[in-house]
Amino acid sequence: MKQDLDSRRRANLQRLFEPASVAILGASEIRTKPGGRPLAYLSEAGFAGRVYPINPRHETLFGYRCYPAIATLPEVPDLVVVAIPANSVLAAVHDAAAAGVGAMVIYTSGFAEIGPAGEAAEREIREIAARTGLIICGPNCQGIANLFNGLAVNFSTALSEGQPRPGPVGIVSQSGLVGALVTSECMARGLGIGYLVSTGNEAGFECADAIVHMAEDDRIRVIAGYVEGIRDAGRFREAAERARDRGKPLVILKAGRSPDAARAAASHTGSLAGPSHLFDALCAELGVVQAESLEDLADAAATFAHGVPLPAGPRVGIVGNSGGFNVICTDGLHRFGLSLAPFSAETVAAIARVIPSYLVAQNPVDLATLPMTDLVTTRSLLERMVADTMVDIIICCFGAIRAKVEELTAMLAEFARSAEKPLLVAWLASAPAGATSLAVGGVPTFSDPSRAVKAARRLLHAPRAGAAIGLAVRQSVTEAALAPLAARLRDMAACHQTIAGEAVLLPLLAEAGLKVPRMVQVASPKEAQAAFASLGAVSVAVKVDSDEFPHKTEIGGVRLGITSAEACRDACHMVLENASHNAPAAVLRGALIAEMIADGVEMIIGVKRDPVLGPFVAVGFGGIFVEVLQDVVLRPAPLDAVAALRMLRELKAFPLLDGARGKARKDIAALARAIATVSEIAAAVPQIVEMDLNPVFLRDEGQGLVVADALLRIADGAWPAAPAVPRHPV
Amino acid sequence: MKQDLDSRRRANLQRLFEPASVAILGASEIRTKPGGRPLAYLSEAGFAGRVYPINPRHETLFGYRCYPAIATLPEVPDLVVVAIPANSVLAAVHDAAAAGVGAMVIYTSGFAEIGPAGEAAEREIREIAARTGLIICGPNCQGIANLFNGLAVNFSTALSEGQPRPGPVGIVSQSGLVGALVTSECMARGLGIGYLVSTGNEAGFECADAIVHMAEDDRIRVIAGYVEGIRDAGRFREAAERARDRGKPLVILKAGRSPDAARAAASHTGSLAGPSHLFDALCAELGVVQAESLEDLADAAATFAHGVPLPAGPRVGIVGNSGGFNVICTDGLHRFGLSLAPFSAETVAAIARVIPSYLVAQNPVDLATLPMTDLVTTRSLLERMVADTMVDIIICCFGAIRAKVEELTAMLAEFARSAEKPLLVAWLASAPAGATSLAVGGVPTFSDPSRAVKAARRLLHAPRAGAAIGLAVRQSVTEAALAPLAARLRDMAACHQTIAGEAVLLPLLAEAGLKVPRMVQVASPKEAQAAFASLGAVSVAVKVDSDEFPHKTEIGGVRLGITSAEACRDACHMVLENASHNAPAAVLRGALIAEMIADGVEMIIGVKRDPVLGPFVAVGFGGIFVEVLQDVVLRPAPLDAVAALRMLRELKAFPLLDGARGKARKDIAALARAIATVSEIAAAVPQIVEMDLNPVFLRDEGQGLVVADALLRIADGAWPAAPAVPRHPV
Repeated sequence: MKQDLDSRRRANLQRLFEPASVAILGASEIRTKPGGRPLAYLSEAGFAGRVYPINPRHETLFGYRCYPAIATLPEVPDLVVVAIPANSVLAAVHDAAAAGVGAMVIYTSGFAEIGPAGEAAEREIREIAARTGLIICGPNCQGIANLFNGLAVNFSTALSEGQPRPGPVGIVSQSGLVGALVTSECMARGLGIGYLVSTGNEAGFECADAIVHMAEDDRIRVIAGYVEGIRDAGRFREAAERARDRGKPLVILKAGRSPDAARAAASHTGSLAGPSHLFDALCAELGVVQAESLEDLADAAATFAHGVPLPAGPRVGIVGNSGGFNVICTDGLHRFGLSLAPFSAETVAAIARVIPSYLVAQNPVDLATLPMTDLVTTRSLLERMVADTMVDIIICCFGAIRAKVEELTAMLAEFARSAEKPLLVAWLASAPAGATSLAVGGVPTFSDPSRAVKAARRLLHAPRAGAAIGLAVRQSVTEAALAPLAARLRDMAACHQTIAGEAVLLPLLAEAGLKVPRMVQVASPKEAQAAFASLGAVSVAVKVDSDEFPHKTEIGGVRLGITSAEACRDACHMVLENASHNAPAAVLRGALIAEMIADGVEMIIGVKRDPVLGPFVAVGFGGIFVEVLQDVVLRPAPLDAVAALRMLRELKAFPLLDGARGKARKDIAALARAIATVSEIAAAVPQIVEMDLNPVFLRDEGQGLVVADALLRIADGAWPAAPAVPRHPV
Repeated sequence: MKQDLDSRRRANLQRLFEPASVAILGASEIRTKPGGRPLAYLSEAGFAGRVYPINPRHETLFGYRCYPAIATLPEVPDLVVVAIPANSVLAAVHDAAAAGVGAMVIYTSGFAEIGPAGEAAEREIREIAARTGLIICGPNCQGIANLFNGLAVNFSTALSEGQPRPGPVGIVSQSGLVGALVTSECMARGLGIGYLVSTGNEAGFECADAIVHMAEDDRIRVIAGYVEGIRDAGRFREAAERARDRGKPLVILKAGRSPDAARAAASHTGSLAGPSHLFDALCAELGVVQAESLEDLADAAATFAHGVPLPAGPRVGIVGNSGGFNVICTDGLHRFGLSLAPFSAETVAAIARVIPSYLVAQNPVDLATLPMTDLVTTRSLLERMVADTMVDIIICCFGAIRAKVEELTAMLAEFARSAEKPLLVAWLASAPAGATSLAVGGVPTFSDPSRAVKAARRLLHAPRAGAAIGLAVRQSVTEAALAPLAARLRDMAACHQTIAGEAVLLPLLAEAGLKVPRMVQVASPKEAQAAFASLGAVSVAVKVDSDEFPHKTEIGGVRLGITSAEACRDACHMVLENASHNAPAAVLRGALIAEMIADGVEMIIGVKRDPVLGPFVAVGFGGIFVEVLQDVVLRPAPLDAVAALRMLRELKAFPLLDGARGKARKDIAALARAIATVSEIAAAVPQIVEMDLNPVFLRDEGQGLVVADALLRIADGAWPAAPAVPRHPV
């Protein structure tokens, strides 16, 4: 049943992008209206499928024969475009679903984005889509365009000044107008566009679906998206992984990052943004390239659209016609984590032979007027640089070039096609025709050296097809080891208990493979006295055992460093006394007697589940590092120990673990494994809303770590049937 | 004598920018050559002064009568432009100086930028300029242009496609071609240019001189500079202060930031870059606006060129024709430290009346198609926003506007002129003519919402005329208090002693007003025993007293926490023993007995003098904070306690001083005063190369601080006559 629905949905997605027939509800004779634009575009783009304008008042529109209603069409259309008032949309969706239409594109606004008044209708549309497999793009969207087959049912003004050249850039946007702008920016950079998809309120058809479709299309090289909020984190993760596995960079401009902007986004496309730092962590792990602005999004598209070879390393050779540009470009390398290539002696000698005597033969290479006066020599120099094994990337910085533009750019494009290393061009205050001719010739071209350097960095870090990283983890915790934890949390949920402290949690974490202090639960001071001996520890901690005090220290419920059985008895008496005094009504189970752990560096491992973006794991140093310095690194869960090690290296205070200031190296590997284990627990037990292992004492290399205290919160509610994030096979 | 030279120099600067007569050495009939371009430009720009091409082979050039040599001219020219080969330049400079020429612009390359081969000639040119007051712009430069009087003796290609409209932007660049690009970028933004100055190798005439000249010219509103290195930090500081005092933003793109780029810069304009983090600290204190890229430099010029009112606060009202842009723009506010204005109820009601029913009346305001369909209503809404006391700045985000462009932009320009709050426009993928018409109409206009927001932030933090900050400090240390320190350092210098430790330094710091531990110098263990009693301290530290061990702990030369007279005697014996054992040849003066100080937070106050940029003061927390987390804040010295407090607030760990985690607040005011005192010492005693007060124990509020140890290094060399940075009057 579920499988039937899935395959129907997949077939209908195909009918959305490759329909044999398209009906336009609300078709208009006015070409600037939403009901007129797609007809004009379809006819101009030469769409080969059958087009049915639905309009009882006309015989034909834009050369297509009109019909009075969907029901009167000679066939059930694959795709219905909806440009009718909001109050008629729901009925149209019902009819289409009943008739077996494959997909609908609903332009109409007035749904969830306007608040309660529009929510009911949108909910019903979502339900129909979910139940029937009907694909619904929108409502509140500008529609889609497949530029390869002329399917331009998108009323964007970006298409109004001539259709874009079909090409390698796929564009998806939750905002119609922003999608149009991205398209215009890409066209201004001479790029061909493959798809333009505006998803609006996403009542079933999401950005993720469009991303998957484009990832599967071999004609697409890069996917550029504008996203205000992710609706289904699992689908987004899968789509990003699909693009990555196909070696297609997914570039996202994520808006709605600040609370004010998230509120604005909610009333724009009705989307929930999710905390932006979690989204960033998700992108970092999935290899999603983030853009900072609309221009930057188009720059990123230009970087990947031409299919230039990916560089083997970060060493850049720079040639330019101005010392100043070269200096600016070299600064950029430093800023973006690249390096200036150390040229071989042959390359230096080759440069020395051709540049004017008043210039120095070095990288960056100042060619002065050579690119305008001697293309043969300029080209031979570029060839020499590409041949130099010390060079991974070449950036050309040209400014104020207004003469012999066609010759220079043709040479560069022809050279770039034959080179096995990437060549990027910064083209400043020069003839605009040159930039276009470079782009059409397949050379990524930018309007500022800093942009070209950013592009080089993006190429270096681009996902390489098949190079899976991050989330595809080796399972380090078995189902059996997690079973006791899951069972206990299920019991808690049944009793509407939402907090578990160390008494409950530490033994369960031990079963999952984490080291915890030896610990005895006692009911009385007398038992405490005996427990001291049984633990055989030099020093113990005595803590009140109750679920009602997450912060035991504050109520005098903790005594540390107890070194005799008698003192242990007295300490037990004291903590029970203090707890009763502070909270006479609290249920006290007794006390915990645990061996004292205080050697090692204090770390914190945390779990946080975001309702939109899913589970994340965090790590930081204890004490001031997390609270004051905010030195915390987050990643989506689950992840493996290798990814956890990458996380650790991002901590600013990481050198403290790695032997800084003459101290011994800590057991970083053990910490990475513990993070991986915690991340797997977070992913496998979706009821965990938050979990804090704090402090975790990390010892010297080879000595492991001990989780000294832990606290967990689960959701108060029904226990779902399956985990939110499926676990990967071993 | 010095005064005569200064006033001659000032007069000659005037003759450079406003010459009555200009001679061109190496004048050419070919307009694309450096010797031909200025003649063509002068004639096209209608320069009203007398122009003398020097070329014995022609009767006239570009309509001007030629002369065979400078000596044959009917007058001594105010300005001589030099476009002759490098080996003839020096003679020409000698001749010009002898004849009383006011200024020279030397285009010719082949001087310090090519290394030793060109250094001697450049040094001699510098000496002539310094001795005679002759102003020399260059060598290795593209010259200057004063667009107000048509003095275009700059061979930049930026002037080859028609002279820029004279206007409020002053441009100065150490790189000729980069200056040309900045000019082109500004022209592309519709901005008028007042000056274009290329300074090249700066043999006497520096960026700072050009900045001062522009700051004094009322027609200039903003100065945009491209700088690879500062030659004279004092002159740069003064120039920046002059611009700030006149309320004219100085925007600098500083290149040569990374070591590689600094090397490239050295071979480009022969300039020393100076560490970029020190340059940043200098800019922060002087109110210099830094640009990130060439485009950003032009954006910053556009921000200030129109003289829009400076905002009273950070609250931004956003209107746009797309929800998506508005969300992107709102994100920008968050990123750049601005905030979304909370509209008054009247403003919200006014919006609700005019926007379509499916949109929400809130800030940001989505006007949908209103700006294209109803300008009267759009304008009334803008008026409502300007009248709202909760709004400080208005940003309009318009995208894909291709119809009624002239009407909309004319309305916006007219409205902006009458508004008393700044209005900025982001104009995306819209008709380019609109951007030009906005700029010409006086509205700062940008190609991306994020750029417009950055501009708003720059307006908010712009220097306000007369609002002196930073370096103009109230003197907190009297000359008398500094005299003992200065005298002692002079004595040290005489003996080629370069290091002073705590025994010497702490008493001198005490005289300058800083609290240090009570301390006694002893020659023997017996004296140490007596010293314990005389100090009357509960606990003392015993340290070997010698200048030969800057790191005493490492050789066993320190004993801490000594609590009896006998132990003090033994400790003294021990540290002397250890020192003799480790360094038999070292001269030991004996030992220091000092009261133990260990209460409070450990801080470090440091001084570092950069040979290019001058003295800086630094502050950070002791221990891992400086070494591992690099949590250090730097500022140019001297500064006052208010500026020192601003420094402290920039420390990431500042909350630890300010009562974080329930701890008592520390004596922040005392720390700020101590930083100011140290900064004044650094500025007043230029021999100090480095000084470290480490640790400084900072106590709870009201309890002050104690400098527990200190180390100082002076330059080994002659004692200069006057301090590098003049002290300010009380």
